[in-house]
Amino acid sequence: MRVGFIGLGNMGAPMVANLLKAGLAVIVFDINPAAVAAAVAGGAVAAGSAKDVAAQSGLVLTTLPSPRHVKQVYLAEDGILAGAGKDTVLVDCSTIDPQTARELVSAAAANGRQMVDAPISGGTLGAQAGTLTFMVGAEADLFARIEPVLKHMGKNIIHCGGPGSGQVVKICNNLLLAISMTGTSEVMALGARLGVDPKVLASAINTSSGRCFSSDTMNPWPGVSPNAPASHGYAPGGTAEIMLKDINLAVDAAREVKQPVMLGAASQQLYQMLIARGWGEKDLSAIIQLYRDQ
Amino acid sequence: MRVGFIGLGNMGAPMVANLLKAGLAVIVFDINPAAVAAAVAGGAVAAGSAKDVAAQSGLVLTTLPSPRHVKQVYLAEDGILAGAGKDTVLVDCSTIDPQTARELVSAAAANGRQMVDAPISGGTLGAQAGTLTFMVGAEADLFARIEPVLKHMGKNIIHCGGPGSGQVVKICNNLLLAISMTGTSEVMALGARLGVDPKVLASAINTSSGRCFSSDTMNPWPGVSPNAPASHGYAPGGTAEIMLKDINLAVDAAREVKQPVMLGAASQQLYQMLIARGWGEKDLSAIIQLYRDQ
Amino acid sequence: MRVGFIGLGNMGAPMVANLLKAGLAVIVFDINPAAVAAAVAGGAVAAGSAKDVAAQSGLVLTTLPSPRHVKQVYLAEDGILAGAGKDTVLVDCSTIDPQTARELVSAAAANGRQMVDAPISGGTLGAQAGTLTFMVGAEADLFARIEPVLKHMGKNIIHCGGPGSGQVVKICNNLLLAISMTGTSEVMALGARLGVDPKVLASAINTSSGRCFSSDTMNPWPGVSPNAPASHGYAPGGTAEIMLKDINLAVDAAREVKQPVMLGAASQQLYQMLIARGWGEKDLSAIIQLYRDQ
Amino acid sequence: MRVGFIGLGNMGAPMVANLLKAGLAVIVFDINPAAVAAAVAGGAVAAGSAKDVAAQSGLVLTTLPSPRHVKQVYLAEDGILAGAGKDTVLVDCSTIDPQTARELVSAAAANGRQMVDAPISGGTLGAQAGTLTFMVGAEADLFARIEPVLKHMGKNIIHCGGPGSGQVVKICNNLLLAISMTGTSEVMALGARLGVDPKVLASAINTSSGRCFSSDTMNPWPGVSPNAPASHGYAPGGTAEIMLKDINLAVDAAREVKQPVMLGAASQQLYQMLIARGWGEKDLSAIIQLYRDQ
Repeated sequence: MRVGFIGLGNMGAPMVANLLKAGLAVIVFDINPAAVAAAVAGGAVAAGSAKDVAAQSGLVLTTLPSPRHVKQVYLAEDGILAGAGKDTVLVDCSTIDPQTARELVSAAAANGRQMVDAPISGGTLGAQAGTLTFMVGAEADLFARIEPVLKHMGKNIIHCGGPGSGQVVKICNNLLLAISMTGTSEVMALGARLGVDPKVLASAINTSSGRCFSSDTMNPWPGVSPNAPASHGYAPGGTAEIMLKDINLAVDAAREVKQPVMLGAASQQLYQMLIARGWGEKDLSAIIQLYRDQ
Repeated sequence: MRVGFIGLGNMGAPMVANLLKAGLAVIVFDINPAAVAAAVAGGAVAAGSAKDVAAQSGLVLTTLPSPRHVKQVYLAEDGILAGAGKDTVLVDCSTIDPQTARELVSAAAANGRQMVDAPISGGTLGAQAGTLTFMVGAEADLFARIEPVLKHMGKNIIHCGGPGSGQVVKICNNLLLAISMTGTSEVMALGARLGVDPKVLASAINTSSGRCFSSDTMNPWPGVSPNAPASHGYAPGGTAEIMLKDINLAVDAAREVKQPVMLGAASQQLYQMLIARGWGEKDLSAIIQLYRDQ
Repeated sequence: MRVGFIGLGNMGAPMVANLLKAGLAVIVFDINPAAVAAAVAGGAVAAGSAKDVAAQSGLVLTTLPSPRHVKQVYLAEDGILAGAGKDTVLVDCSTIDPQTARELVSAAAANGRQMVDAPISGGTLGAQAGTLTFMVGAEADLFARIEPVLKHMGKNIIHCGGPGSGQVVKICNNLLLAISMTGTSEVMALGARLGVDPKVLASAINTSSGRCFSSDTMNPWPGVSPNAPASHGYAPGGTAEIMLKDINLAVDAAREVKQPVMLGAASQQLYQMLIARGWGEKDLSAIIQLYRDQ
Repeated sequence: MRVGFIGLGNMGAPMVANLLKAGLAVIVFDINPAAVAAAVAGGAVAAGSAKDVAAQSGLVLTTLPSPRHVKQVYLAEDGILAGAGKDTVLVDCSTIDPQTARELVSAAAANGRQMVDAPISGGTLGAQAGTLTFMVGAEADLFARIEPVLKHMGKNIIHCGGPGSGQVVKICNNLLLAISMTGTSEVMALGARLGVDPKVLASAINTSSGRCFSSDTMNPWPGVSPNAPASHGYAPGGTAEIMLKDINLAVDAAREVKQPVMLGAASQQLYQMLIARGWGEKDLSAIIQLYRDQ
């Protein structure tokens, strides 16, 4: 089976490399010719459009920046649905809102095609190492068919439920990340101001009930987690801009179902404030600057 | 060496039991005669006042409900400082504000006595099992002297730095717990409303960047963490009232040093709202009711 | 000159009545035949489509529920732009986001047509009494041309600046209304809980620095403002649902320009919480229930 | 009747001047000799202590910076209660928490003395012009006795109810001021960023439902209210520090009665953030810097 891949950005490019390394034939398309050339140099075959990729592939993967791009690539005249055969499975790995994800699955079904939402987490490092997490929304049989392919690129392939549920899990997780990163920043800055060594503070929290990924793995105070962005000038990792994009998806999805998200909305505005001060391209853990830069 | 113990409540009583089990001689005092009688029935010796306890002990432990009580027990005419000998070490395990903790250490030093702040976490279950965490603020030599005694009651004895730092670490940890419990409640309720199975949602978060103690150990959605209060009608554990008391200590300490705590203050008000609705004596994870009870 | 009017809802119907009362010829369209019949009974002439209205009118007014409807009515094949003559002025009185408003003005200009945004405030009572406020975004000469017509329906015709500025002013005003209504609710409930008579409290605030429209005209505590919805079972006035719709427009517009709105976002979530509890069709001042219903 | 006055700061000094201008005999005390000398130069008589002031006066006024100072001046050995005769009325014009105010009224009553809480608003300009607002908590007959004296210093003498209610009204009003000033700052900054002239925006809001003291009298955008601090480099007026002190009193009083204040707590943290950036001595309207200084 040949695998199609559309969207060769920071995430897509290393994912293609891992598919090739696993011995799969990969057909690629991107609007950026340089990205295509690099993939071809690595062993992929180029196609002329998303439609062409779909026409030649048993499974098509997409990693695209926004709902607008995803709609365009799937629904346009030279898009995926126009080219995909009856048995081709479509897997969108972009992070988009659950409503759009479900609309696309329905549009695909109306065309007789099977589509899956499978957003990823793990960042560019995870993409390169093949240790990504995939959060998959799909019927059980469909999940079983795509899991072996995703295994070449990821370590955790989580079946989240039916169509759209991959996106729901992704935005819920990322909203909680935003809240706990902001909260960790508050208490690290508070503890330091009250005279406690940040390394000792983090170490105590990490064996107690405040423990979280943002305290024990990606601590926002410089020098606490040696490999974290905070210890390297807040070079991303995931940028504050992308964090805000994900928060916005979650807050908007909550609005659709009339669900309040008080801390989520507060984090949203704090990231907005951080970005307004020019920190948008830094790592999301730079949110601690709001509590230190005074 | 005999150990004195003042404050035989839900935490103090099982801590005394563990000291006795370790073969130590324990002298106790509490204003509640029934609590004293229970300790004596377990092998402790009763004294007539805090002063008497201190006069007969090489090390005195206190677990009391508020800064006011702690001041009273240490500073009153029949209090600890009036009775303690030169070599007696004083260890306050209550959770109070760092400023009061430091004032008491200074008051003890002015009397030629050595005092330590060592607030605990782990709840009544941890107190019974002897698996508490102690967060200790003390000079290094003093820490070395008390650590062996604390080991009889706890698993993690963390040296947080000089006087007051145990309290700082405690309130920082608990503020982060409040924030992440509230945040976890928001996203669990959001994900469920968007159609995802809460168990699947929690399981995905727990291997991702949203992972925290409140998602993987004390999840607020019923049935997700089988042993958590949420799975048992929100029977506490730590009550919402006590959570709010700890948040208040942290927000007030932040105020003293002019440090903003945006999410902390939002959590504070949400717990206030929960308690105003009559949930104060339920477990702190009942905060999820604000997002479900509609 | 004949005036076209599209959108004969709670606001549009009485506005048409006032135009007719002023002796103007009015041509109307609505997708709801009953609304059209009522306007015709009052003296208006019915047209078969938005395009037909525009083809026969020197000035076209629209009052529609959302950006999607506005786009549809202006841009569809049988829409306003397809019918309007070179000298016809188009005036949209709907409340929509500034970005969409500016896009429509540009689309009209590309067709050689002049369009104005003129959202209104004052509610159905103001629409009936002809005392609405119009917040108009238009070049100065265009403003001068439409002002006399708007005067038949409103008391304050405010020139807010160029295209889109009417919408900006509307959403800024309404966001501040949401914040001050929520804030007034907090302090009215707090003062009452602390034992002060709400009428006395409001009266003192209304001559002091806390004074605002929500305290002195539409006070949320029952009985304080005799004519306010709070004194009549929170019968709207403007509903909580519409308040939230306007808050959402403002928070989204802020997001577009990376501007933080901390209190705006908190009010947004509190209205979400109110609506989730089933109060969406009550007056916006019912937000005080979050502080009383415990 | 002679009037005693204790506390000759920015507010007290001009209040004494207005009492003297009205022909009253005034006996003063302050711990700052220069303040006493200035009052004496204006015609007042100096006493040696608070007790001495009380012993010679039929009515004693106090304006002091904090609950701690008020307690000291009333309850100390050389304090007011030690000196006041049976018929002397005590009027505390300081802003303190309602609980302390009520405790002091009870302490006075236990000594057979009548005490009133009468906090003021209007700032130093109002104190000089004799146009202050007094918010008075007192029984009706006592209010009638003191009103004529307060009239020499203020324009609005509001009877808020029984003991403590003056403080409740004061902190409720000031909390709402904090919220509406912060909210006005958000929307002024948002409107400007979206391209609307701030003067036009304010003018439209001031005839609409967003209207408040902070928009129409003390607008935070420079140049909108010509006499406001914002138009004079944010020279205070009331400082951000004092605003935060008042917010803290209100949020703490709310905590005592388990009343949530979501926007109040958010404003509290935003003022904390402003002060942490070094703006504490500027006018409270400088909160807009959080939305502009980026």
